[in-house]
Amino acid sequence: MAQKPIEYRDASPAVRAVFDDIKTSRKVEDVNNFWKYLAHDPASLKRTWDSVKAIMTPGALDAVTKEMIYLAVSVTNGCGYCIASHSAAARKAGMSEAMFGELMAVVGMANETNRLANGYRVPIDPAFDK
Amino acid sequence: MAQKPIEYRDASPAVRAVFDDIKTSRKVEDVNNFWKYLAHDPASLKRTWDSVKAIMTPGALDAVTKEMIYLAVSVTNGCGYCIASHSAAARKAGMSEAMFGELMAVVGMANETNRLANGYRVPIDPAFDK
Amino acid sequence: MAQKPIEYRDASPAVRAVFDDIKTSRKVEDVNNFWKYLAHDPASLKRTWDSVKAIMTPGALDAVTKEMIYLAVSVTNGCGYCIASHSAAARKAGMSEAMFGELMAVVGMANETNRLANGYRVPIDPAFDK
Amino acid sequence: MAQKPIEYRDASPAVRAVFDDIKTSRKVEDVNNFWKYLAHDPASLKRTWDSVKAIMTPGALDAVTKEMIYLAVSVTNGCGYCIASHSAAARKAGMSEAMFGELMAVVGMANETNRLANGYRVPIDPAFDK
Amino acid sequence: MAQKPIEYRDASPAVRAVFDDIKTSRKVEDVNNFWKYLAHDPASLKRTWDSVKAIMTPGALDAVTKEMIYLAVSVTNGCGYCIASHSAAARKAGMSEAMFGELMAVVGMANETNRLANGYRVPIDPAFDK
Amino acid sequence: MAQKPIEYRDASPAVRAVFDDIKTSRKVEDVNNFWKYLAHDPASLKRTWDSVKAIMTPGALDAVTKEMIYLAVSVTNGCGYCIASHSAAARKAGMSEAMFGELMAVVGMANETNRLANGYRVPIDPAFDK
Repeated sequence: MAQKPIEYRDASPAVRAVFDDIKTSRKVEDVNNFWKYLAHDPASLKRTWDSVKAIMTPGALDAVTKEMIYLAVSVTNGCGYCIASHSAAARKAGMSEAMFGELMAVVGMANETNRLANGYRVPIDPAFDK
Repeated sequence: MAQKPIEYRDASPAVRAVFDDIKTSRKVEDVNNFWKYLAHDPASLKRTWDSVKAIMTPGALDAVTKEMIYLAVSVTNGCGYCIASHSAAARKAGMSEAMFGELMAVVGMANETNRLANGYRVPIDPAFDK
Repeated sequence: MAQKPIEYRDASPAVRAVFDDIKTSRKVEDVNNFWKYLAHDPASLKRTWDSVKAIMTPGALDAVTKEMIYLAVSVTNGCGYCIASHSAAARKAGMSEAMFGELMAVVGMANETNRLANGYRVPIDPAFDK
Repeated sequence: MAQKPIEYRDASPAVRAVFDDIKTSRKVEDVNNFWKYLAHDPASLKRTWDSVKAIMTPGALDAVTKEMIYLAVSVTNGCGYCIASHSAAARKAGMSEAMFGELMAVVGMANETNRLANGYRVPIDPAFDK
Repeated sequence: MAQKPIEYRDASPAVRAVFDDIKTSRKVEDVNNFWKYLAHDPASLKRTWDSVKAIMTPGALDAVTKEMIYLAVSVTNGCGYCIASHSAAARKAGMSEAMFGELMAVVGMANETNRLANGYRVPIDPAFDK
Repeated sequence: MAQKPIEYRDASPAVRAVFDDIKTSRKVEDVNNFWKYLAHDPASLKRTWDSVKAIMTPGALDAVTKEMIYLAVSVTNGCGYCIASHSAAARKAGMSEAMFGELMAVVGMANETNRLANGYRVPIDPAFDK
């Protein structure tokens, strides 16, 4: 039996409080499916949202850079949902198509050279360990 | 039998030409182990360097952003060599410790939520497919 | 050309023998798609089923713990089929929604801290190698 | 330049507060390297420890089951540090050698059948989506 | 907003030149979706095609062996598109169903033993480093 | 507490029987560390060896092709032990340095294009599903 999303109208007060904070913080009318599914575990919902909110707030890195890094990881892991949602989020934060193209080129190249380094069993240069 | 690095003095003219271009482009006195091992396959060495050089040139994304994305992928894949070399490259390109800390926090969080999305079998919101 | 499932009525005696054993062992009326596709290679079908049967039999670990570990791996790898089938199997073996929520929280956290350990290049504590 | 661990004597009050909580909660004399490296980012240190502490507290799942799931993920991802530290933690929480052997057998089998399901392109059985 | 494929009739001269080369080299009437999407970044399209063409040309390894290795990687990574396209390419290059079955068995077993080696923390035999 | 290898002289009769079969089948004087560690779980040792022996026997694919596929998977997963041991095994089975170079080039390219397909969210061509 697959789980169903929990909609706002059916949510407990604890879940609604998180949904409200997401909607206010992101200025959206409804939360994404990710949060509606995670709502099956209210403690996990709150902890995950609190962490995402803290981590994704602009700091030493700006919002679009953080979203592009999120997308780079999601593409590497092949998480379909995450690629769709963070592509949208990165574009909303200012990623142009040219930026997306370059991001994908770097992600592709890194995935390639990671395996070349593995396969050729390249030892770490002493300079990198200083 | 593990392979050994190919040093400049022992390299063929084709390999030396790539090593020279790496040294000139990066303003370094010697190339990293990665290139010395890949030199066992001169065609692969040249193709990989040409691609890396083209992809990592600043364009719509600047150099430090590209290096941080490279690092995010390498950390996700757990490539020890690549983490060491691209940590160094990102720092050289301007990544501060505060930027590294935020990068790692995003990479960690993305790896976590990728699995939450997988495990809860979250369907893609129609808005993301428009 | 994608492969099609092999149904019992179309199966060879060798494949039917495995299907019969799965149905008897699991007390089900039909085998899952996984086995119907693997049936294209009868030797692989038999070897895989024999291993799964031996490994998933309760021993030092009970059935629900084994199924939750299977699910944790499948979620980490992002295998959609395996997540669907082993979610069902784990629930059948006694995994409650509270257990599922905690399982997912651990899987998410482990995927996060695995990358933090990678990225910070944390050396193994001597105590762990004793 | 690789980072160095931050020892208690050199730590800021914010970092010391987390180290103290780890030592008290786990009844250990010193924290593991993981925390000494993560201490370079005090906000990440605190957030990660708070989450780990909340998630690993026995609830619907007991401590040893949670540690074994953590280990299953770490083994799947090939995180050397995490395998070493969570092998130790799981044994401390009660994992016997027989339990470890069965855990590894399930992890190995799941990683195998995940790929068989991928490669044979097995569609999800309708029963799993009900 | 998801991207759309770029069809030949709507493509720039630079993109058409690559599409033409793919069609001629592979003796196909139209290019696969992969190239139609990558065409959003013409530089990446050209670089990727040039590399694929060079790498997949028979040399020390024949065409079917190269396609099977491509498929083994794609199955391990769980890339649905790549599994579908390289299954087709491998069959076109001569992979029989018996070869596919054995390929999958090796891929499954390697994914299993990779994790057993990780989990048991097996040190590399000195003989492998000579 | 890390595990130690189990040497022949200290092994139980059941473990010795497997070790003997490995030594005879492979014409080697001693088994690799992998088997000495797996020997902590004699049932897993026997099951894994029986599967490896059956799967790696030449059939529709010859020995060197099977070893190269094993290596391609191990490189993709970044399993250091497996890369070392299967590099050696592939060379012993006849893989030349030219073959190794081409293998690595295909593995690298596949890991790259797997991510490009993920990131561009490329839908499967209808022709591949026929």
